[in-house]
Amino acid sequence: MDIKVGKKAIAEATEKLKNWGRWGKDDHVGTLNQVTPQDIVKAASLIRTGKVFALGIPLDASGPQNGLFGGRFNPIHQMLATGTDAIAGRQDWNRIRYADDTLMLCVQGATHWDALGHIFYEESMYNGHDARNVDCNGLGKLGIEHSRSKMVGRGVLLDIARFKNLDCLPDGYGIANAELDACARAQNVAVGRGDFVIVRTGQLEKCLKDGWGTFAGGDAPGVKFENCYWCQEKEIAAICSDTWGVEVRPNETTEANQPWHWVVIPAMGLTMGEMFYLKDLAEDCAADGIYEFFFCGPPLVITGGTGSPINPQAIK
Amino acid sequence: MDIKVGKKAIAEATEKLKNWGRWGKDDHVGTLNQVTPQDIVKAASLIRTGKVFALGIPLDASGPQNGLFGGRFNPIHQMLATGTDAIAGRQDWNRIRYADDTLMLCVQGATHWDALGHIFYEESMYNGHDARNVDCNGLGKLGIEHSRSKMVGRGVLLDIARFKNLDCLPDGYGIANAELDACARAQNVAVGRGDFVIVRTGQLEKCLKDGWGTFAGGDAPGVKFENCYWCQEKEIAAICSDTWGVEVRPNETTEANQPWHWVVIPAMGLTMGEMFYLKDLAEDCAADGIYEFFFCGPPLVITGGTGSPINPQAIK
Amino acid sequence: MDIKVGKKAIAEATEKLKNWGRWGKDDHVGTLNQVTPQDIVKAASLIRTGKVFALGIPLDASGPQNGLFGGRFNPIHQMLATGTDAIAGRQDWNRIRYADDTLMLCVQGATHWDALGHIFYEESMYNGHDARNVDCNGLGKLGIEHSRSKMVGRGVLLDIARFKNLDCLPDGYGIANAELDACARAQNVAVGRGDFVIVRTGQLEKCLKDGWGTFAGGDAPGVKFENCYWCQEKEIAAICSDTWGVEVRPNETTEANQPWHWVVIPAMGLTMGEMFYLKDLAEDCAADGIYEFFFCGPPLVITGGTGSPINPQAIK
Amino acid sequence: MDIKVGKKAIAEATEKLKNWGRWGKDDHVGTLNQVTPQDIVKAASLIRTGKVFALGIPLDASGPQNGLFGGRFNPIHQMLATGTDAIAGRQDWNRIRYADDTLMLCVQGATHWDALGHIFYEESMYNGHDARNVDCNGLGKLGIEHSRSKMVGRGVLLDIARFKNLDCLPDGYGIANAELDACARAQNVAVGRGDFVIVRTGQLEKCLKDGWGTFAGGDAPGVKFENCYWCQEKEIAAICSDTWGVEVRPNETTEANQPWHWVVIPAMGLTMGEMFYLKDLAEDCAADGIYEFFFCGPPLVITGGTGSPINPQAIK
Repeated sequence: MDIKVGKKAIAEATEKLKNWGRWGKDDHVGTLNQVTPQDIVKAASLIRTGKVFALGIPLDASGPQNGLFGGRFNPIHQMLATGTDAIAGRQDWNRIRYADDTLMLCVQGATHWDALGHIFYEESMYNGHDARNVDCNGLGKLGIEHSRSKMVGRGVLLDIARFKNLDCLPDGYGIANAELDACARAQNVAVGRGDFVIVRTGQLEKCLKDGWGTFAGGDAPGVKFENCYWCQEKEIAAICSDTWGVEVRPNETTEANQPWHWVVIPAMGLTMGEMFYLKDLAEDCAADGIYEFFFCGPPLVITGGTGSPINPQAIK
Repeated sequence: MDIKVGKKAIAEATEKLKNWGRWGKDDHVGTLNQVTPQDIVKAASLIRTGKVFALGIPLDASGPQNGLFGGRFNPIHQMLATGTDAIAGRQDWNRIRYADDTLMLCVQGATHWDALGHIFYEESMYNGHDARNVDCNGLGKLGIEHSRSKMVGRGVLLDIARFKNLDCLPDGYGIANAELDACARAQNVAVGRGDFVIVRTGQLEKCLKDGWGTFAGGDAPGVKFENCYWCQEKEIAAICSDTWGVEVRPNETTEANQPWHWVVIPAMGLTMGEMFYLKDLAEDCAADGIYEFFFCGPPLVITGGTGSPINPQAIK
Repeated sequence: MDIKVGKKAIAEATEKLKNWGRWGKDDHVGTLNQVTPQDIVKAASLIRTGKVFALGIPLDASGPQNGLFGGRFNPIHQMLATGTDAIAGRQDWNRIRYADDTLMLCVQGATHWDALGHIFYEESMYNGHDARNVDCNGLGKLGIEHSRSKMVGRGVLLDIARFKNLDCLPDGYGIANAELDACARAQNVAVGRGDFVIVRTGQLEKCLKDGWGTFAGGDAPGVKFENCYWCQEKEIAAICSDTWGVEVRPNETTEANQPWHWVVIPAMGLTMGEMFYLKDLAEDCAADGIYEFFFCGPPLVITGGTGSPINPQAIK
Repeated sequence: MDIKVGKKAIAEATEKLKNWGRWGKDDHVGTLNQVTPQDIVKAASLIRTGKVFALGIPLDASGPQNGLFGGRFNPIHQMLATGTDAIAGRQDWNRIRYADDTLMLCVQGATHWDALGHIFYEESMYNGHDARNVDCNGLGKLGIEHSRSKMVGRGVLLDIARFKNLDCLPDGYGIANAELDACARAQNVAVGRGDFVIVRTGQLEKCLKDGWGTFAGGDAPGVKFENCYWCQEKEIAAICSDTWGVEVRPNETTEANQPWHWVVIPAMGLTMGEMFYLKDLAEDCAADGIYEFFFCGPPLVITGGTGSPINPQAIK
């Protein structure tokens, strides 16, 4: 495709790809509707060796946030009870010795799903809901809680970095639809309806080695704007990547920040997953040549959440 | 069994059931080692209809905490960006309209796993680690991060409430080992090595209907102390329930608070899950008579966490 | 005065009492401008015995919040380092033994100032600022930081409860302007320009004894709506009380929640202080018959804060 | 003085300067006992012009923390209600339009007091309390709440930077007792019993201009170890500075981190204030040649707090 990315292209794609009403006017999960129970049964047959890959990065102070975007900070983990308290005899009145703790985090600060209410187009959310439904009380519509049992199905890894013989795609590298298709062909895997598609650029692994730098909000490889058409055509359930925001940065336009987001979430209702840890899974897929697997990535049931921190599981 | 529960019985069970070193001196996951890759492949064959049951309760201010235990509070969900901000034009400088949020919660405040470092016996944790490894910096040993890819396998529901024709077992009702076995037989399901066993009392469903009351830390139905022997003998991977603390309350002794915990976590290294939402799953099992399923309950990768909030998935 | 309280009366009072522009179009502190340096020098002369009264209530989990209003919760105090850690040797690498901690609180959850950006009238804040300046990033205008050096001057206690020979005024009791004046006369004190006026109802002391109940957001004694005229006429700097919201509840109308607030903050720019602890101060004033004192109640410099938790000092 | 700083010197100073029991065995405020009511009355006479100087730095994300010390982070300010919500009509059900917010902060993360339970010597706190009294529930002894009405008296600024004709003393510059005395003489002010002594190095002002860098926990000018003898001899109430930790860094020894702290808090019970903003006050003192003033720096009443964020007021 040859798209001049900008507000006009966004408006055009919004018009063409809009899934509002497609799954009913009360629908809250969008493209996750593409997964049928039969797909899940079929995906179960991909569990052949019993290997489990955890795709979540650690939640701690070393995490990716750097102050570049929107007041986000790294997870703050604090104790309510400790072993040192126990040993000092401070818990003995309670006749139990234990540890307990709290976690404060940005919902989208590490490996996470975006809920469909995360991005607006003009005054609207997916399915035509008014963006005013999202206030200080949270997402009155389209919160992540609606997806509590919907993140199960067939997973497909498209290892673009390995396909191009690179450890990591360079910042600013835009992945074209044709390249996704070529990679799939080379990997001998077909992307289809209801799939959880995971795109590997190598960026997160590089950062785990070299430091986060501007990972969260800075430049990155990622899919081109045209990818919104590809996702719609393939009828996938969700798209995920090992980057901060799935799409290429700097963006292909300066008229909009994250132009692909402007379309895929509010118009299409496409679920996306970000900052997936893919090293071990990708190495295994390269070793056995099998790039499909059972995928299970349940969100926390955060009422009115814009997303959820997750630790998705790829099972082969 | 006929056990006089108290510190002596705890010491005796600790001695008899201690799994320290059983899976190596560096082991951090205890009985989760009971699950083999082959078990996971076999469990996948239980996915026959593609039904997915989400077992996590909502994380919000309405949650179960009531101040009864250890300074725990209900989840605090706050916005970093809203649709009302977007519509007021407050985000336009950033060329994107979006919502974003934070979550502060007690790790063990709703549906969750306990990590093996959650409970101490005298000065020790599971596998002989010194409890002093748990300080204000978190769990230096046995944190939940070690289980990131270990919560997958065969799930078995033991619906004791339904077995006894009750909506909810009464507070203080202790479930004997023999009753677990009888229930399994009646349900035509066998509990075995590597299983994720889920015990339903009906209490959480009652509270969702009638209000939480003293659910968090008050009286409850649950397994008897003798259950530690049952879990060891069955070689299960984990035990879960729809109550605050799995075991019966008031406890069978006043010498220890949660005497079963004193044994199963530090001596055995048994993983436990608490406050599971079981209504839909239990109704489905009752309807089709099938009480086994594929289980996938990934924890968040909380470095040094005493556990993790979760939304486990039962897939049939 | 005989006012039929409602939206019409609010509009009328807003029109009559509006101080917009009175202290310049860039003014951020409103009636605090009433205090002159000479007033502060004069107030210093009220320090005659060196007695200091702390007017802040404790910040801890026992605090007044009860979930009745706007998602507010009680302070959460958590440790980052403890003596038990120190004694367990967990800090020795750092060659210092110490304790450290964090505090999470609702800015207006205990004894506090309201900033002038706390309340809007229609689409506006005090001095004509657009309410859209208050978004998820905080108060772009009229934040509490502007008052960092303005909370010093002469304090006057009007002990209405004692004046009426009551421990505590009953809920729903509206204090009329005439009663404030009569109390002042009885106490032999005159209220004037630049004063920090503190009204005692006895309610907070009652709650400290009997439990908070619905203190935060429920019924209460307090000033009548007509008080806005009194404050303007007296040219006071600020008004404070030992209740949750200064004004009487149930309010004198159902057309508006806190009708007095609708006027005094956005129209007048009047600073108010709430939940002041007055027992010790009031007893001392009753004993020596002196109801004026040096007042110093510095807010924290919370950038863009709607107010600040405080521990104001009355010095005699 | 000529002290070889190290553990031996600490032990010796601890022995010589120990104030345990000096103000009773139940004393919780140490040297703050040096202030008498008469001192406060006398200090009031220093209020001659009505000028008020706020000594607190802003509490926001731009603050001094940098991850160098103990998991401390900058203040997190979040909204519970906004003007944009109000204007979008999201509050109209409540018949009031308002803003509300929360603050999460490290108690010692910006301008603050240290409570006497902040530092331990071996297993003890000031006045002989066992350090085990400080556990995950906070300071069971010596919390900041005990000082709620004790931070009032005569303030004295010792502007060492200006005395030496420097904008900022260099990192590692140790201020000797003799230099404090010389500065006081040059400023024509005497330091005495019950004073709140504030030492200006210029470092905080430099950081406000040039960026925080390693201000929090890195190198700094500050008082020498011998200063503990000076504080005891002068019988001051408290010592404060515009640096992170009052004393010189790198410290004069590698045997202890913050050796002066080891003595002044647990042995002497000396209150200290850190990160004071002194620019405006210092300029005024230089202009009128008056380095004494009324000081009022009330802490928040944080039950069991290791200190309190503050905005102290110097009034001339």
